Amino acid sequence: MKKSVFYHAGCPVCVSAEHDIIELIGKSNVEVVHLGEDKGRISEAENAGIKSVPALVTPTGNVLHINFGASLADVKG
Amino acid sequence: MKKSVFYHAGCPVCVSAEHDIIELIGKSNVEVVHLGEDKGRISEAENAGIKSVPALVTPTGNVLHINFGASLADVKG
Repeated sequence: MKKSVFYHAGCPVCVSAEHDIIELIGKSNVEVVHLGEDKGRISEAENAGIKSVPALVTPTGNVLHINFGASLADVKG
Repeated sequence: MKKSVFYHAGCPVCVSAEHDIIELIGKSNVEVVHLGEDKGRISEAENAGIKSVPALVTPTGNVLHINFGASLADVKG
């Protein structure tokens, strides 16, 4: 199965959601991307349709915005 | 593993998220509750900390609000 990608920015809401997602989906099925540390991938996240973090992009390309940690604009700072 | 519970209200955003969640977690690992058809469980959802649907309550009791379909107040009508 193609991996899901979990984008976050290190905020408390993000970290909590990350733990839940990994627990539910399995660590081997999800790639975790920290946009605060890896700003080069912010444009990738935008192209995927992400408006805020934390967010999960499913293997089929759907975006699930989970709770609300920060807008992508804030991450870009 | 204890099941997750996915609460929704039949809105398009809910149905789309339901498909994604079932695909990711597996149908046997999640109970789906339609609050529009099963209003008796709205108080259960409120007690779990749900503010809007669709939302997933993990086996550990954490609430993941996914995208935004409708506030619980709207579901209560």
